Amino acid sequence: MSNYKKLEKKFDRIGKLNHLLSIVGWDEQVNMPQDSGESRAEAMAEGYLMIQELQLEPELQDWAKEAGEEAAQGKLLPKEAANLKQIQKKLKEATAVPSELNHALTLAVMKCQHAWRDLRKNNDWNHFLPLFEPVVSLTKEAACARGNAFGLSPYNALLDQYQSGLDSNFIDRVFDGIKTWHPALLDKARARNSTILQPSGSFSISSQKNIGLEVMNALGFDFKRGRLDVSHHPFCGGVSSDVRMTTRYSEDDFTQSLMGIIHETGHGLYELGLPKEYEFQPAGHAAGMMLHESQSLLYEMQLGRSLPFLKFLSPIVRKHFGNDPSLETTNLQKIYQRVEPGLIRVDADEVSYPAHVILRYEIEKQLIEGSISTSDIPALWDEKMMCYLGLDTKGNYKDGCLQDIHWPGGSFGYFPCYTLGAMLAAQWFQALKRDHENLDTAMESGDFTAISSWLKTHIWSKGSFYHPLDLIKDGTGEALTDRHYKLHLERRYLS
Amino acid sequence: MSNYKKLEKKFDRIGKLNHLLSIVGWDEQVNMPQDSGESRAEAMAEGYLMIQELQLEPELQDWAKEAGEEAAQGKLLPKEAANLKQIQKKLKEATAVPSELNHALTLAVMKCQHAWRDLRKNNDWNHFLPLFEPVVSLTKEAACARGNAFGLSPYNALLDQYQSGLDSNFIDRVFDGIKTWHPALLDKARARNSTILQPSGSFSISSQKNIGLEVMNALGFDFKRGRLDVSHHPFCGGVSSDVRMTTRYSEDDFTQSLMGIIHETGHGLYELGLPKEYEFQPAGHAAGMMLHESQSLLYEMQLGRSLPFLKFLSPIVRKHFGNDPSLETTNLQKIYQRVEPGLIRVDADEVSYPAHVILRYEIEKQLIEGSISTSDIPALWDEKMMCYLGLDTKGNYKDGCLQDIHWPGGSFGYFPCYTLGAMLAAQWFQALKRDHENLDTAMESGDFTAISSWLKTHIWSKGSFYHPLDLIKDGTGEALTDRHYKLHLERRYLS
Repeated sequence: MSNYKKLEKKFDRIGKLNHLLSIVGWDEQVNMPQDSGESRAEAMAEGYLMIQELQLEPELQDWAKEAGEEAAQGKLLPKEAANLKQIQKKLKEATAVPSELNHALTLAVMKCQHAWRDLRKNNDWNHFLPLFEPVVSLTKEAACARGNAFGLSPYNALLDQYQSGLDSNFIDRVFDGIKTWHPALLDKARARNSTILQPSGSFSISSQKNIGLEVMNALGFDFKRGRLDVSHHPFCGGVSSDVRMTTRYSEDDFTQSLMGIIHETGHGLYELGLPKEYEFQPAGHAAGMMLHESQSLLYEMQLGRSLPFLKFLSPIVRKHFGNDPSLETTNLQKIYQRVEPGLIRVDADEVSYPAHVILRYEIEKQLIEGSISTSDIPALWDEKMMCYLGLDTKGNYKDGCLQDIHWPGGSFGYFPCYTLGAMLAAQWFQALKRDHENLDTAMESGDFTAISSWLKTHIWSKGSFYHPLDLIKDGTGEALTDRHYKLHLERRYLS
Repeated sequence: MSNYKKLEKKFDRIGKLNHLLSIVGWDEQVNMPQDSGESRAEAMAEGYLMIQELQLEPELQDWAKEAGEEAAQGKLLPKEAANLKQIQKKLKEATAVPSELNHALTLAVMKCQHAWRDLRKNNDWNHFLPLFEPVVSLTKEAACARGNAFGLSPYNALLDQYQSGLDSNFIDRVFDGIKTWHPALLDKARARNSTILQPSGSFSISSQKNIGLEVMNALGFDFKRGRLDVSHHPFCGGVSSDVRMTTRYSEDDFTQSLMGIIHETGHGLYELGLPKEYEFQPAGHAAGMMLHESQSLLYEMQLGRSLPFLKFLSPIVRKHFGNDPSLETTNLQKIYQRVEPGLIRVDADEVSYPAHVILRYEIEKQLIEGSISTSDIPALWDEKMMCYLGLDTKGNYKDGCLQDIHWPGGSFGYFPCYTLGAMLAAQWFQALKRDHENLDTAMESGDFTAISSWLKTHIWSKGSFYHPLDLIKDGTGEALTDRHYKLHLERRYLS
């Protein structure tokens, strides 16, 4: 057996263990009874430890080196060579951060994240700070170690965990660009808000679910390889052969949950479209979280909030909830295109959203680079919220710097993926329109096959066989850019 | 670290892997979309292979030997010594059957079981036979190997897989005893059948579920550590910290599903009552399948079909389905105590049931011992069905020897656990009544705490710390006997 094949076999085992853990992880969020968590956590931790141990088996380093030779001698197929690159990255990741440091970070995160739920409720920054401080300092240490292994700056090393190909110089340039046109666009868009008829009444959960299923079906979600369930925090989990999407319903308002389903459907379709023959191998995975968010945001923002889509959606909603004027296309459009800056990121409209992300990016980067400390966060948060969105957050930690799970959860470097994903979604959609003339007509009639088949060809089926930035260039004809994002926002909110 | 502790650590890992596999296995039956099975099967097979490999690590044999010394020197706590015995048994099992033989058997079973579903539907014994033949011959080979390792006859080696402490001489004696009084009891019980008012109408599944949940709650099922869901074949799965019971509803008839829920609740309570501190260790598991069935049958037969319980149940049913005379206690009693021999084991009444089991036991024992061959089965089946239940099954393989999944699934030696479990259930219940005078009154009022607390003390909390036959003797004051079973049937069906 070639050294590459030996590696592939080991990663096949790792992939299968990950399969089991993903299903069990979904179950934990969706089904697990309240007192079963302790045993479950222990069982899952053991599973992850086994994966870690498999990656650290000493012969893997030798095989990887030898397999590199095999690749250089042209003995590997192109897909195998691409998979080897991903495997080599995984092996480097497994050894980059000393395991004691990793362990200490995990413990600090668990403690901080656990306390955060109540501390946020109680608006208690002072008790949060001492728990958060070790999370940040250990993350910085781990980022340095990871950076050393990969030849990256500490913050770039964190970005690279979620999306390879990103660096903070590029993000600085893009976000500084956005900041030049964002305030004026936001003001103009707000000035155009018109009166909305708020759909009122009680919207039965079973009808909401049926609408969601009908829309998912139309978008091409394959229910023979996936499901829609309910969880407290909506997510898209499971594995590419069995995608587990979740949502959360409120009887007072169907609009948020429905758009949430469309968002998660974007993630789900990406997973379902990944290359089956590499499902247990690293190259069979999605090409990064910016790419993943670009798919969910393409479905939510480019498609889901567009007029043609809402023309398709309105009759479905009225079929279930009656012919109320609030459910007419034009009113749905007002609802889904309303611009009203608020304190909470996850509730933000499409135009306000980048301000939330840029703020978090700027703070976390400085934090990791060491130019600010954790105690500086609230003042910086207030200053930036006032500057970017004109909102006063002083003393309101709950709806300010305590609102997200990311930082207490040790996820630094993820936030940029949201706005870069939104940018990229506009870029993909522009290319899609370039290749398909009558997209709007098709969407109005509920035919989304051209969209999903284009995305499958250019993104989903490519797994991680290509560099993400090449994937973008190959599919859209240009490098990652904010041009189409700006044009999209102007077209939707100003014209 | 002592050698015992090293073993414990290894089996902790195995227990946690089994935890993941149990949850994923439940998910497969309850949630998995139809086209996700192939990847799922591969992932689960890898998990089981990893367990097998862990058990075969060569140092475990040394540790087990050394730990045996530690036990002999009194260095282990009694529970640790008991756990060591279970571990030693697992290690012997892992090596008893050569892995090529195991693999060949697994393949033969997969092929036969897969084909069986359609062949049964088509009443096609002739095409079943050549697929079944290798299952039997490979099972015989494996039984010999297992028997050699454990010093048991081949059939006893199969029994021992499901319940240690059983042997076929004992079962012969017990079953021959039952056969002396069974035909007369069956005839007399049938003669006493009176006209039943069949509950009719459409019984909503949500009401059926609510009744089931109310009954489970009353019986003491802890929904903070378990759930009730729907699957095609009802079962009790999951793990002891998170018990996953399933049922199957029919809108035409609520009575079967409801009694099925009570049966599975018996299994579920046993699991929930196992010793928490050994949950990942072999000694923390139930003491065998006869013991397990004794709990489900105690709840279903001793308790669930009794008059006091039906007095408690009837108002709950009427609350949901209205005050129909068919739902009165006396009519429910007629339904649940009706005796009418039929062809299908799983639909059999309490009195007919042992005949189905004895028939299967006698055939499978002869098959494994080599005194008959697979082609003799249909004729033997017909003969015994006529003799024990007076029913003609000639040419009806579908409702005859093709009806159960056990044999095509390679499960030989399991069937006796059903009737021995029913016997043992009567014995436990007799002891329970001995220790609690007013059990009937308590049951009528829906108070089952005395029952569950007695069972928890004498059975559930004991895990596998004791020899199963000792457990029975300690709890009931006598060795496993059919005496109380016979008395119970006579009391219920003749008096």
